[in-house]
Formats: sequence, structure tokens, C-alpha cells
Amino acid sequence: MAILSLLSSSSRTRLSGLREPLRQAGLSALLTRGAPPPLHPHAPTTEFSSPGGHRPPPLDWASVGSRTISSHVGTSLTQYGSRNHALTLHKRFYQTLRPQHPYCGPRASIATSEAHHSVNDPSEVQRRAFGSAAKSIQRNPAYSVLNSDDVSYFKSILGDNGVIQDKDRVAVANVDWMGKYKGASQLLLLPKSTNEVSKVLAYCDSRRLAVVPQGGNTGLVGGSVPVHDEVIVNLGGMDKIISFDNVNGILTCEAGCVLENLSTFVENEGFIMPLDLGAKGSCQIGGNISTNAGGLRFIRYGSLHGNVLGLEVVLANGTVLDMLTTLRKDNTGYDLKHLFVGSEGSLGIVTKVSILTPAKLPSTNVAFLSCNDYMSCQKLLLAARRGLGEIISAFEFMDRQCIDLAMAHLEGVHNPLPLSPYKFYVLIETTGSDESYDKAKLEAFLLRSMEDGLVADGVIAQDISQASNFWRIREGISEASVKVGAVYKYDLSIPVEKLYDIVEEMRSRLGDMAEVLGYGHLGDGNLHLNILSSKYSDNILAQIEPFVYEWTAGHRGSISAEHGLGQMKAEKIHYSKSPEAVQLMASIKKLVDPNSILNPYKVLPQSAL
Amino acid sequence: MAILSLLSSSSRTRLSGLREPLRQAGLSALLTRGAPPPLHPHAPTTEFSSPGGHRPPPLDWASVGSRTISSHVGTSLTQYGSRNHALTLHKRFYQTLRPQHPYCGPRASIATSEAHHSVNDPSEVQRRAFGSAAKSIQRNPAYSVLNSDDVSYFKSILGDNGVIQDKDRVAVANVDWMGKYKGASQLLLLPKSTNEVSKVLAYCDSRRLAVVPQGGNTGLVGGSVPVHDEVIVNLGGMDKIISFDNVNGILTCEAGCVLENLSTFVENEGFIMPLDLGAKGSCQIGGNISTNAGGLRFIRYGSLHGNVLGLEVVLANGTVLDMLTTLRKDNTGYDLKHLFVGSEGSLGIVTKVSILTPAKLPSTNVAFLSCNDYMSCQKLLLAARRGLGEIISAFEFMDRQCIDLAMAHLEGVHNPLPLSPYKFYVLIETTGSDESYDKAKLEAFLLRSMEDGLVADGVIAQDISQASNFWRIREGISEASVKVGAVYKYDLSIPVEKLYDIVEEMRSRLGDMAEVLGYGHLGDGNLHLNILSSKYSDNILAQIEPFVYEWTAGHRGSISAEHGLGQMKAEKIHYSKSPEAVQLMASIKKLVDPNSILNPYKVLPQSAL
Repeated sequence: MAILSLLSSSSRTRLSGLREPLRQAGLSALLTRGAPPPLHPHAPTTEFSSPGGHRPPPLDWASVGSRTISSHVGTSLTQYGSRNHALTLHKRFYQTLRPQHPYCGPRASIATSEAHHSVNDPSEVQRRAFGSAAKSIQRNPAYSVLNSDDVSYFKSILGDNGVIQDKDRVAVANVDWMGKYKGASQLLLLPKSTNEVSKVLAYCDSRRLAVVPQGGNTGLVGGSVPVHDEVIVNLGGMDKIISFDNVNGILTCEAGCVLENLSTFVENEGFIMPLDLGAKGSCQIGGNISTNAGGLRFIRYGSLHGNVLGLEVVLANGTVLDMLTTLRKDNTGYDLKHLFVGSEGSLGIVTKVSILTPAKLPSTNVAFLSCNDYMSCQKLLLAARRGLGEIISAFEFMDRQCIDLAMAHLEGVHNPLPLSPYKFYVLIETTGSDESYDKAKLEAFLLRSMEDGLVADGVIAQDISQASNFWRIREGISEASVKVGAVYKYDLSIPVEKLYDIVEEMRSRLGDMAEVLGYGHLGDGNLHLNILSSKYSDNILAQIEPFVYEWTAGHRGSISAEHGLGQMKAEKIHYSKSPEAVQLMASIKKLVDPNSILNPYKVLPQSAL
Repeated sequence: MAILSLLSSSSRTRLSGLREPLRQAGLSALLTRGAPPPLHPHAPTTEFSSPGGHRPPPLDWASVGSRTISSHVGTSLTQYGSRNHALTLHKRFYQTLRPQHPYCGPRASIATSEAHHSVNDPSEVQRRAFGSAAKSIQRNPAYSVLNSDDVSYFKSILGDNGVIQDKDRVAVANVDWMGKYKGASQLLLLPKSTNEVSKVLAYCDSRRLAVVPQGGNTGLVGGSVPVHDEVIVNLGGMDKIISFDNVNGILTCEAGCVLENLSTFVENEGFIMPLDLGAKGSCQIGGNISTNAGGLRFIRYGSLHGNVLGLEVVLANGTVLDMLTTLRKDNTGYDLKHLFVGSEGSLGIVTKVSILTPAKLPSTNVAFLSCNDYMSCQKLLLAARRGLGEIISAFEFMDRQCIDLAMAHLEGVHNPLPLSPYKFYVLIETTGSDESYDKAKLEAFLLRSMEDGLVADGVIAQDISQASNFWRIREGISEASVKVGAVYKYDLSIPVEKLYDIVEEMRSRLGDMAEVLGYGHLGDGNLHLNILSSKYSDNILAQIEPFVYEWTAGHRGSISAEHGLGQMKAEKIHYSKSPEAVQLMASIKKLVDPNSILNPYKVLPQSAL
């Protein structure tokens, strides 16, 4: 079988089980020399030829605010000349094509969201499963109702163009990109400066008008849209880059800058953003910080708590909190900025950001591997941390069910290891400063891993189309899953050694009722648990919930690894946080926002407030 | 001159200005092949032969608490077999020999502190310059005075061995390791569990007895000793390792674990602690976290805010706040643990910790370079971030005055670049997973930097003694500076492009009155500004302060990069933080510790509370 596997692949990077003959022939030479023949003759190389043509533009607030908010940094696909930039973009290109990808970002425009509310739309099924907080949470009568004096005041501050009452335009801002959560706000405000945000909030606080801060509106838990009639304050008009320190790689900008624009800007300076998301074309850095976004570079560069250096935040009463340091080290008093990283706009509105950007490294390699059991995946992760330590940039895993699903539902995708069905598959990406060293290091590591029995089989991408195909499989799972019918999605953090247990237990619980898939960022202990069936069923849901939350809590996991709580899971915080912690959170909320005007009905349970 | 420089060095790693002949001869071969002759015939290689013999033991609380608090992990020097471990230890060995090193850790034992209070002791001069908060801050009469009932209660909770009233023993805990700050506490408590800490604090809160939390007592700003008669709660008895996840490198332990013991433990598992300090032999992880310690690995692994995954904290009223997650990702509510990282024990007592430990990498290289101007140092840093990106682990700089000082006052230290006096010197260390790849990468980078004119001259260490000599120069500056007479020390964060300006301005201000030195962690924007004169002078101090704080504030720097505020700089917080931020800090302090029993008179100005 091993011989067959080797012979069937025309690629010289095939790492088959046939180790001894390979070693005798001189492994390194076999693996690295010569022009590699294409691994997949039918690989979708043509798709990359003109990605710009299919690429959806970032959310354009010109259609909302009857004005053009120009970006201060250009985003031109043609700027990307090197192989690795093209690879990165290609990954994004795939993602942005997804029509309904709950984990990887927004549609190109939410202006057409109504078109997606068909009966056959999988997101409709999803909506039935989770619903909107508005269905269960009554409007708090303590909040004032907007009146014409309020609108006049806002116009005196923001001008007519900054105060949107047009119903169609407000409707767009009332709904999240999935069409899953829908509010009933009557007013959209578009401030262009910190001072304007401050005046707006001071007024709202004095009038006790509830407010929902909004960035790119790409969140996944209904955190950036109103639940009832909250005034929407969108930061998209604050999109200036303030400074860039190109010795230290420290970017300072306004909160409304679109992540992809910032990426382009710093890449031109020889740096990269420390985070990368499928939603990068629309999401804003202020929203990223307010939700403590994770994303694809987490395993390499860590959390935003480690990368954000400074913030400017406007508190509920209009106080501007200047914490906009650009220093790597500052131990003078409590580091308050962390309160606002991940608090989902409920403690203040982030208006300016300074963030550390790592140096851009020129060399990227991607390997697609199979493992015979989950223990091997774990051991491989451990070995990769040691052997690839400083160059590893992704370690993603998928079970066989994911691969089968991707092959069945994704067009133009090929299984790089088609001959044997393995139980688990792992994608490893490395990024470093030297192409030849890095590749040799990866190859040597993979051969050792095969000799140690951790890897059953594997391939290393030889060109962009192969690398894109590998990534397409991993990133297309979510897209493929919604094509089946009903899908129940959970985003869990679980200690790695227990991470796959929940998949197996769920499979055992559900039996023939549904198909259970497990995949995710193994390097971060982040499992995406997907449960598929032909149609939505209360019976299935009853088997899943609250079991999945209870199981996660029982293993000291998190019921929200990277998406936050928003309105979807505000009432479920107790599964992951102690009563004492929730109580302290509520005390801090009351301290900082005593009238509770900021993003009400979200993040914390109503009972705690 | 360049030719002379090359010829005079017998080492093949000499990177002289003579580039063309080197290139013609095949640089790579010249630089890396063959057994290297010793760079310094008189290098102190014998010092390393038995470092254990001179190595001071960690602070032994047996002499304080009349009991032995055994460490649950052993620290044996002989466990270190590899070259790189030996190098690391050698660096520490040097540090722990320093008699008075305000930036790099404690003496071996504070039991002999009285012996250091001589008139000629430089620390005495230092004390005159800064004084102790007790001199200017009156005891808050709202606090109760300890009575015999209190002591009886504590004995009922902690047992007789956990309640120390012996005057000599309490005196040791009343003074910091420098002998600079001295309190008047009557009681030292040694809890052994979270439950005991909780009961102690609940009682103190109900009685309004002020408390100072204490770890290894290695702080530099008087944060871990009483100002007046606060009860000392030392965590040294809570030193158990709770768990280690050797797939993800996640360590969970009690707060009283000594950093070096944790380092030894995780290194045996193939990982390293993400922080490393000169004080590692005594400092405790709870104290590290409470002070947000920086240290030598900051440039590579970043801040504790990015590495600490979870905490257990006891609040002032005895509430145990369980935030002890071991997850890399958890976006459920506000991330409260960050409030306690760097709050210097004024918001709660850290009792348990979970922390991410990076994989241990086997290859370390050290280069010692010279630059003609500060701009070249900056450009070299930028180039190193790009060219060495993933393997760089230190980027330290020193001006010529530092080198001259080190050569004049440190025994057994040699200037690796003795022939030309350069204005600036840079030490670069790399750490990676492959010896040959990493070394070749560093050499190629250095040659490019010489060709670009960024580096004037340089050497790469060929063995441990050379590497130790390089580190000894950088780390010995502080030790050498106290031998001159009076030394005024400032630990500042300043944007890198302005970092050396304060040194030059200070030099210009002081003229012949004093010698001004600048060195520090350039990669982190952290300057150690030292001002030397033969004796203490009010005139000199008046030229330095408040100028140095005002200058730093004017450039949006931090007056405390990594040491915290403690009692030394609590009243100076406004130089680095806005009034709104200080006010919010004070509000949070009042919320969490309404009776203000935890570490009073410190961190925040009295006026804010």
C-alpha cells in the first residue's frame, strides 16, 4: 500500500511510508531538487488568474450614508507581486466567495441581505436554531425613546450627512451579515472624529438613549446590531492612519480602518498585521479589538492582548480615555486597555488604536498530512512546536468526515492524499525569512515525523495552486457544511488532549440522526464542531444542547473561543465563567457605564445587571 | 584600519570592514568552517567550570519562618548538559554574583542586609536620592492597629508556624533586597493554600488591617515591603506545580513557585518559561505577574499579558476569583485577569497561575557589533527584524561610555572589538531550532549589514566563554556603575527613534558635573539611563529631576518601563498616564478593594484615592 501510494504520486514531495528506499536514494535530493511536476493536473490554477474580478469590495458606506468614506490606504491586488503574497490573497479570495460562511466573514454587501432570506437558505435554518435575543429579551423601559430634538442635536454635531434616518439605509445597519440578528433602530450615526463620538455619547448618556457601536458588522454573535431601538454609532468614517513607526513596526490608526487596508499599508512598509481574518475586507480594527478577534495568525503571533499597545476609548459619559501609547513596555499603573479588548463595545467605544506589527517574512510553505489517530495529531503538534518552533504559522486539523464533505461539495478541490482514507488530516504552514532553509527544515521535520510514525502520509505544496488547494480544503469545510441542509455550529476552546472527545461523544449520542464533524485550529485548542442533518429538528437540537455547553464547561473549556458572546450567548456565560467573575464583570460595567447605554442586552446576562 | 582590525583578530568570525577580500575567498566557508581558535586568550573560561560553587541559593524562607518550604521541583546545575543551557546558566551566574544590582535581582539572602548599610555603600547614596515613601506619606489612621486577638485568629487559621512575630524574622521581611525601602510591620503570615489566603484577607478586610502581599521580595520600587505597619502576607509557602500540559506547553502552578524552579521543570519537559530575569533564583511567579515583569525574553515572547492564560486571585474581601483557565482562546465576557497583571498586588493576591511556555529550541548564537551612530543602531534593528525575524531573541545596545565603564570596573572582561573606539555597540542573540541553519542565517545577515554600512565591525561568539563575555559586558554595566560612587538610575520606555536623545540632552545639561550612560533593550524601546558622579549632590539631582520625567512625558514615554510604580513612583504616575486614566484606575481600586487594605500607599497617588 505504501509503495502504491508512492508510485501513484508524481510529485517529488510525496512523503510516503516507503522510507528506507527514499533514505537510501538520498532523501534531501529527492525531495527538493528539480522542477516539480504538478501534483494535481486539474488544480484550479485558473481561478487565481484574475481574482480581482470576483473579489467583492469592502462594505461601502457610501450606499448607507449617502457619502463616500474614502479609504486612506489603497487596496490593489496588482500590488502583490511575490508568490507568497499571491498565496495569501488567494486564500482570502476563496473565503470571500463563500455565500454564507458564519466563521469567516461577511458577504460583500449587506445591502442585498433580504435576498438571502429564502426558505431554502441554510442561514434560515440556522436562525431557527439560535434565534435572536429580541425574541426573549424585553426592551428595557428605562431607556428613552428617540425624538426629533435628539435628531436635531445629533445633526448639530455631525452635520446632516452624519445622521441617517432613511429607512432603507438604517435597515441595512439593523441586520447582521448573516441575516440572523435584526434590530429595530431608527437612527444611524456616522461620526468622523473622537470629539464627535464623545459628544454623541455624552448626550446619549444624559438622555439615557441606548447605543450600539458598530464597525464592519462582521460579527458572528449579533454583537454589532441593535436588539431593539438602540441608536447605531458606526465608526466607518474614522479610517485614517495616524502614524507608522517603521523601525518598531508600530501602527497607530483610527478604529474604523478596514483590516485589509491596514494589511496592505503595513505590508508596503515591510510588516504584516498580527491578525488575519476571512472578514478582513470589511471588518474594522476597532471591531477586531472590541471582539478580541483570533483568526489565522493566532498560533504565531498570539492574542490581541499581547499585540495591542494602546487604545483611545470614549466612555459612556463621553469621557475620552487616552491610553494611546506606542510603547512596548509601560508599567505605570493598571493596564486599563485590556478591559476594552474583547468587551464587545459594552464598556466604551474604541476610537484609536496602536498595534504592534511583526516584520513581513518572505518564505511560506504548506504541507498536507494524514494521521492514523488523534493521539498522533497531538504528538505531531508537540513535535512541530519543537522542530519548527520559530517558523510554524498554522497547524490546522480535520477529521475524515470533513475531507469527505469537502470533496463532495466543493468544486475544483482535490484530495492530495486520495488513495487511503485516513482518520485525520493536518495542514501545517511555515513562514520564515529564508526560503531554502525553511523548506529544508520542514522537509526534515516531516521525514522525522514519518519515521516516528506520527504522520501516515503527506505532501508539500510545490506551487501556489497546490498550496491554495490545501487551504481550500480546510477553509471550505464551513462552506460545504451549509450545503447539506441544516448545520449546528459550535466554536469551542477545549484542552487539546480532550478536544476530539466531544466529537466522538456527540457522534455516539446522535447515532444516525446526524453527521458530526470536527476540525479547527489545533495549535490553539480551538475546535469547530459542526453537526449536519438534512433538515432542522428539535430532537437533534435537544440532543446537542445543553449537552455541548455542559460538556465544555465540565472540561474547563470555553463556549466561545474567538467569537465573543454578543446577544447569542450572553445568557450562557456561566458555562465558562464563575459566578464571582461574572459578578465582578457586572460591577465594572456598572462602574464604567452606570446608565448601561452601551450595547445593552449583550455580553453579560441580564440578571447580573 | 580595517585591515589591521581583521589581521589582529585570530577568530574566523571577525566581521571586519575588509569585505571584498573576504567575499572573494568565499565568505561562508571562511566564517563557519574549522575549529575556531579562541577569540580571547584570557577569556574567563575557568569561571564556568564550576558555577554552582559560587551560586547563591534562592531566598530561603526556612530562616524566616522557622520551617523549610521545600520546592517541588529540583534545581540542579548538573542537569544542564548542552552548550546552550550552560550559556544561559552562565549568564545567570554572573548576575547573581552582583552585590548590588538594582535592575537584575536580589542578593542571595536578605538576612544580611544590615551589613550593606555602610556609608560607602552606593545603595546608601541611591537611597538618599529617592528615599522611602514612609518619609513623606503619613500612616492612614483609618487602618486598625494589630492586636493580640488578631494574632490569635491568624494562628487558628495558619497554625503557629504560619504566623511569625519574631522581630528578627519580621525585620527581614520588612526591608527590600536593596535595603532601600523599610517598613515597620509587626507580623509576617505564611499561608499555604488559597483557602488560607482567603480567610486571612476576609478577616483583615473586616478588621480593616492593611496588608502587603509579598513574593520573592525582589522588586525595585518598594512594592513588596510595608510602608508602615501593614501585615505581610508572603506567598512562598504556595510553591506547588499543579499540572503541565506537555502538548501545548501550558504550566499551572501556585503563585509562590520560584521562577528558576519553574524554568528547570519546564526545560526538562522540552519547554522554556516565556520570561527570564536576573532575579529568577528568588522571584516568584505570582510576583512576576503582579509586577508584569519584562526581562530578557520580552523581545521574543512579548508581555505577560500575552502569555498568562489564567489566574486565581483572592480579592480583598476574601472572595476567590477563579479565572484559572488553561485555554489559549476564551472570549466569554471581560478578560478580568489582565487587571491583576501589573497591578502590584493592590487589587488582589494572585494565588495560582497558568502560563503558556514556548518550546525550548536548541540553537543559540551571540554577536557583538559596533555601529558608528545611533541611526545605524536603529536601522540594524529594523534589518534584524526582517532578516532574522523568527530567530532573534535579544537586541541590546550600549554606548561607548558603557563599554569604557565595563572595561574599567569589571574583572575578567575583554572588549571583543578593542582596536577602534566606536560610539555604539549592539549585542544580538538568536535562538532557533537548527544550529547550522541559524548560524548561517546570522552570518549572512551580518555580512549584509556590513555591506550596507550599518555595522562597523563585529564578532560572533564561537564558544560559551566568548558568548558569556559578550553578555557579561552588557549585563555588567549596572554592576560597574555602582562602583563609581553615586549613580542615578532611570528605567524609561521611549519610542526608539527618540530613545538616545535623552542621553545626549542629559549629557549636555550636566556637562562636567556627571557622566551619562545609555544602554538597554533597544528591541523593546527600553532605555536604562545611568548618571554617574563621584558622590551624591543635590545640584546634580536638581538638574536631572523633574527634567527626566518631563522629557519622558513630553515624548509619550513611560517613566517605568518594567519595574512598576510601587512606593517609589506612585505619586509620579501623571507623567505617564492621563488624569482620566488615573481616575478610572482609582475607581476600580475602590470597587475591588473598598477598604483599601491591599498594598496601601503604592501604585496610585494618594490624592486619587
